[in-house]
Amino acid sequence: MSEILRICGKHAVREAIRSERGVYKLWLSQTLNPPILREFQALAKENSIPVQLVPPQKLNALLPDTQNQGIVAETGDFTYLEWGEFLDLVQSKENPLILILDQIQDPHNLGAIIRSAEAAGVVGVVLAKHSAVGISEVVAKAAAGALEVVPLTQVTNISRAIEDLKEINVWVMGLDANEGQNIYKGNLTGSLALVIGNEHKGMRPNVAKHCDLLLHIPMHSSRSLNASVSTGVALFEALRQRDHLTPGK
Amino acid sequence: MSEILRICGKHAVREAIRSERGVYKLWLSQTLNPPILREFQALAKENSIPVQLVPPQKLNALLPDTQNQGIVAETGDFTYLEWGEFLDLVQSKENPLILILDQIQDPHNLGAIIRSAEAAGVVGVVLAKHSAVGISEVVAKAAAGALEVVPLTQVTNISRAIEDLKEINVWVMGLDANEGQNIYKGNLTGSLALVIGNEHKGMRPNVAKHCDLLLHIPMHSSRSLNASVSTGVALFEALRQRDHLTPGK
Repeated sequence: MSEILRICGKHAVREAIRSERGVYKLWLSQTLNPPILREFQALAKENSIPVQLVPPQKLNALLPDTQNQGIVAETGDFTYLEWGEFLDLVQSKENPLILILDQIQDPHNLGAIIRSAEAAGVVGVVLAKHSAVGISEVVAKAAAGALEVVPLTQVTNISRAIEDLKEINVWVMGLDANEGQNIYKGNLTGSLALVIGNEHKGMRPNVAKHCDLLLHIPMHSSRSLNASVSTGVALFEALRQRDHLTPGK
Repeated sequence: MSEILRICGKHAVREAIRSERGVYKLWLSQTLNPPILREFQALAKENSIPVQLVPPQKLNALLPDTQNQGIVAETGDFTYLEWGEFLDLVQSKENPLILILDQIQDPHNLGAIIRSAEAAGVVGVVLAKHSAVGISEVVAKAAAGALEVVPLTQVTNISRAIEDLKEINVWVMGLDANEGQNIYKGNLTGSLALVIGNEHKGMRPNVAKHCDLLLHIPMHSSRSLNASVSTGVALFEALRQRDHLTPGK
């Protein structure tokens, strides 16, 4: 499955140019800082990308409602890994960390989560094919280039995907607002898939049922966190346990 | 200093009604779920708030570009604590945790950060008066009700505020993308103010200079996190050290 995108911003466009996906057209603002302008003109030249220098208003018209940082690009198709390829990738890693998103709906959240996943060294991100936000310009911008680096896969049935991962010895833990074990008492160091639910409704009960364990982040109030924040807290707790608790690090 | 706001969403409106700030008008969608509709009609009645039942389109017109969840309210002035009151509040707490935001610009980030601050039990949040995003509808919505609960203060000079906090024995630590100590090796258990910089440029050098210590979150890549995610990771690391490392908890 693939989609066509306009993306913007220094990081996202730089990564898209460097990635296999490529960039077909590049618009740069006449008001860009000269060093940035020169960098992107050089990148465009090296990669034979047609580039146009335009007034900033033109960029706003090309991609409304985003802070484009003076750089907009039209990229090739966005490609998801096939589920089988994704499983192969997971199996090729030692103690892989995987993220499963069960119906995240806000594109800012999805982008920020993919950005966190990249920074936390996640092997790949599993998205639900239906009832979830797709990869859009807003997602690409919020991911700040990570979209070009983190493997993504889409599945029709999250519960089935969880069962497939369990079969290759991945532990599946669901992050819940209230239920389950204190995350700081959980062991997040092995092969682990972390399941994140919808911003408002959390994980679907049927998905939660397939998890080996539920985890929650203990808080000082009965409120909840933004979904991208709670995902970040959980991912970096896994990273802390993996890296910081390792002797000699 | 004060501002007038329209706010929306279940959490934010419920908290505003319960807070001293109050709500002057309430619009409810005709398509709201009956139990939610009844809850807000009862709340309005108890608090003598005029309420109007309207088609969902009317709510979208009242407050464009937000997911209003069928509930929009007009609230009283938003009030910041005076700096002297804020310092008194900090001094009244044992081992207070404080958040200082040096020029956060994205309203979604600001709202998500205030939401995290509330969940982490932060005593209050310090904002820069100039060159920073103000409290708006988008902030209120992203804060999901926390705006009504977390004390906020605005200062003209962040460095000066840092020095005032140091004088009352608060340790001031700045979160940086690369510099400083590994956050997991820092001691975040005492009286602590955490300084967060701008989304793109980080902390201003002059502000960083006033910090007792800089901290960074170790990552698996050279990229950075969304500002609200890194703030959440740092706040919850402080909370983990305070709560989870305490014997008997």
